[in-house]
Amino acid sequence: MSRSLGAIVDALGGELVGDAGLSIRRLAPLATALHDELSFVAQARYASQIQTTAAGALIVPVALKDSAASRGACIVADDPYLYFARLTQWWRAAHEPAEDPRVDPSASIHPTAYIGDRVSIGPFAVVGPGARVGAGARIGPHCVLGRDALVGEESILYARVSVGDRCVLGQRCILHPGVVIGADGFGFAPNQGEWVKIEQLGAVRIGDDVEIGANTCIDRGALDDTVIGHGVKLDNLIQIGHNVRVGDHTAMAGCVGVAGTATIGAHCSVGGGAIVLGHLTLADRVNISAATVVTRSIHQPGLYTGMFPIDDNAAWEKNAASLKQLGRLRERVRALEQRIDNDIPKS
Amino acid sequence: MSRSLGAIVDALGGELVGDAGLSIRRLAPLATALHDELSFVAQARYASQIQTTAAGALIVPVALKDSAASRGACIVADDPYLYFARLTQWWRAAHEPAEDPRVDPSASIHPTAYIGDRVSIGPFAVVGPGARVGAGARIGPHCVLGRDALVGEESILYARVSVGDRCVLGQRCILHPGVVIGADGFGFAPNQGEWVKIEQLGAVRIGDDVEIGANTCIDRGALDDTVIGHGVKLDNLIQIGHNVRVGDHTAMAGCVGVAGTATIGAHCSVGGGAIVLGHLTLADRVNISAATVVTRSIHQPGLYTGMFPIDDNAAWEKNAASLKQLGRLRERVRALEQRIDNDIPKS
Amino acid sequence: MSRSLGAIVDALGGELVGDAGLSIRRLAPLATALHDELSFVAQARYASQIQTTAAGALIVPVALKDSAASRGACIVADDPYLYFARLTQWWRAAHEPAEDPRVDPSASIHPTAYIGDRVSIGPFAVVGPGARVGAGARIGPHCVLGRDALVGEESILYARVSVGDRCVLGQRCILHPGVVIGADGFGFAPNQGEWVKIEQLGAVRIGDDVEIGANTCIDRGALDDTVIGHGVKLDNLIQIGHNVRVGDHTAMAGCVGVAGTATIGAHCSVGGGAIVLGHLTLADRVNISAATVVTRSIHQPGLYTGMFPIDDNAAWEKNAASLKQLGRLRERVRALEQRIDNDIPKS
Repeated sequence: MSRSLGAIVDALGGELVGDAGLSIRRLAPLATALHDELSFVAQARYASQIQTTAAGALIVPVALKDSAASRGACIVADDPYLYFARLTQWWRAAHEPAEDPRVDPSASIHPTAYIGDRVSIGPFAVVGPGARVGAGARIGPHCVLGRDALVGEESILYARVSVGDRCVLGQRCILHPGVVIGADGFGFAPNQGEWVKIEQLGAVRIGDDVEIGANTCIDRGALDDTVIGHGVKLDNLIQIGHNVRVGDHTAMAGCVGVAGTATIGAHCSVGGGAIVLGHLTLADRVNISAATVVTRSIHQPGLYTGMFPIDDNAAWEKNAASLKQLGRLRERVRALEQRIDNDIPKS
Repeated sequence: MSRSLGAIVDALGGELVGDAGLSIRRLAPLATALHDELSFVAQARYASQIQTTAAGALIVPVALKDSAASRGACIVADDPYLYFARLTQWWRAAHEPAEDPRVDPSASIHPTAYIGDRVSIGPFAVVGPGARVGAGARIGPHCVLGRDALVGEESILYARVSVGDRCVLGQRCILHPGVVIGADGFGFAPNQGEWVKIEQLGAVRIGDDVEIGANTCIDRGALDDTVIGHGVKLDNLIQIGHNVRVGDHTAMAGCVGVAGTATIGAHCSVGGGAIVLGHLTLADRVNISAATVVTRSIHQPGLYTGMFPIDDNAAWEKNAASLKQLGRLRERVRALEQRIDNDIPKS
Repeated sequence: MSRSLGAIVDALGGELVGDAGLSIRRLAPLATALHDELSFVAQARYASQIQTTAAGALIVPVALKDSAASRGACIVADDPYLYFARLTQWWRAAHEPAEDPRVDPSASIHPTAYIGDRVSIGPFAVVGPGARVGAGARIGPHCVLGRDALVGEESILYARVSVGDRCVLGQRCILHPGVVIGADGFGFAPNQGEWVKIEQLGAVRIGDDVEIGANTCIDRGALDDTVIGHGVKLDNLIQIGHNVRVGDHTAMAGCVGVAGTATIGAHCSVGGGAIVLGHLTLADRVNISAATVVTRSIHQPGLYTGMFPIDDNAAWEKNAASLKQLGRLRERVRALEQRIDNDIPKS
């Protein structure tokens, strides 16, 4: 299952330096790559590792061409990290070719559902009345498509993904196992100490080229829809509340929670474990650090953070205790300043 | 699929001002409602929007009746938000009438299970030995009910909900896709650097009218049961540890974690991403802000918070660095105070 | 379904004080145990409860033997908590004997899969081409084993666990419902404002005696594998990113997130809701408190914490506002110190 360097450059471009016939058995990280493996150096700051890696060949930027060539074969690319990404796609397609489309006879497909050309449907999947599956889509085992749900062309749903009634997925989306699209948003009216359910009448609309990680949930809207833009990438175990809007090409790391009716711009990033409160707006190109709580709208692009710094426990205990007196400490400093201003002659 | 204003008031009450024959096509948010849509104004502070909305009709409190009537049709209700909640229920029932009960022939139902009247069971569901499903309950596709599990009357389990052996759900509960009731609690005894499993011999008991969000988990108790009270509302991706007790009508937002043997009172709320540590008690009517860590018991009702304020990253870095010196800073202020008390004559 | 004290000691050892024929109906917590129930006192600091519990018998350490014997029957054990753990295992085996192995005829098993002796496979499970299930393993309903996946001997997969292509589970593992092993890691290269997928070519390798909680996710590696050591215990709703390495016998509580390429040592613990950032290293025997964010490598064993202390909301607001001025406050204190040093004669 090897490929030659020449075959790689033929498929993906770049300038080849060295032996086109060199056989590459695997793609590997720089630190552990072996003589028959291909690795990459994305940035000049990793240049020192060029001389220490045992990789059989390297993908490098133009600035490192001479350094890499002095030790062996390399592919010179404008953006080695992007080249590497495309190489992983090509490599996977070569080694794990997609299986022929097949609708498993055990799947439960409603007679009013529409199944496009070249669709695969796995064992025990359930396709509800009026649901539509676009051409080339792959529906994994145990997936459930609700009434009038829509899966766009060439989208891939891994095992046991739920797409609720009337929810819509764009083209070329990838949904990992356990994803839940279109559960009810969390809406209740208080009434004499009890909660009265607000039925969630909206749906979820997801754009093209969206990837959604394992066990992530996107709730349906209360009245309007919850909307996820094109090219959005969501990691695992993320919660997206009802009526949230996420702009195109925004990415969120694992364990993020976005409360209802938050509007997040395009090209944003949200770090792992961050919480975005509801009914607020983030502008385009806002970056939120991991574990940060967004409590107000942010109108300017930039990086925003709020996280208690880790420390050894004893130091933390001392500083945390002081923190609970911080307002008081500030008053004490103000009193000192006034006392000194009043009582001490300037030197 | 429209309904007239008159039909709405006939069904739900309230005082109708204007044309009973006005046709309502959809319920809509105030800001985006159109001429054939119905919206609501819950509070007097949104009064200014009455004049700007394009909604065909409004649900308003008595105090806003004149203002609303001056622009068109309205329904006057004591509590417009509650009225709206009930309207969503009526609207959904009118537009998506429940399907006739049906047990899918693909479901795997143990001969010793009891299935009540008017029960629906979806494709590929598994109902274990001795399990009981109360009258009118709806078990979605791919649900798994364990040995001797009990689902109360009229409860709804959406797709792939697991209810473990001997766990009990009350009546009229709603469980969204991916919920796991009755996985083992996290209990191990240390032994020479390894962990010895403590089998979890308790179960989970859930009251009536409980709603549980997608992919939320409630673990079984170690010896006694984990207990969730009546009317509790849990959002998505929540973790409830073993032997936790949650009082009636408490609500928790998404991504909350409650550690083992915590006891949470009735009518509490827990904000998104908050963590409640184990073996502590929250009184009734305690409200925990989002992303707050509850590290001690709380005996008084009220709102409690602990969260690092978000800031632009540069400001955060500076303040966080200072925070790690805060205990020292407090000592420096104390030294200044003593120095001044000793060395400066009072003016 | 009772057992005598004598039968317990015969099976598990320990010194019996009192009536070997005493019938034990249930294991119970100390505070609520009844006269026909057995409880334990793990540590001398709970000694006072020996006189107040109604338990029919107690498991106690040697130091509490006389105190316990003065009130009734007891079992004296070197480590009562460990004894209790083993007792729960024995109790469960006695009361819920494992069912006979059975492959449900509804399961979809690829002809090239290997199924060992005494394997159970539940309804609607899917076993992919080339997958291998070791002797005595139990695969629950709706589980999905991917191409060439491996489940070790005597491992237990509860309902709807996914094990992705080529992923490997060791022996005697326990995976709770909804676990996802081997979804794609979160890897993308930026390109002109969009994200280009980096195919995740590695897998997941999990050691022996690992327990993984409900809805927890462990992503496959990008090039190398994600690796979980022997005896690791993961609670519910945990996210483990690609290429993470977790050392033997490390335990993590619920809702933890570990970002890609973090390396966590052996015998570590991570508290609930903690976040470990990527590309960092924790030494062996590092303990992270709940809700703490690990932003740097930690090379020394010990307990580390970073969490904003909870307070009533008004106090929090005041302290949080002051915190955003903390760097400035520190400068003001420094200015005061200099002013005093310059302008006040030492007394």
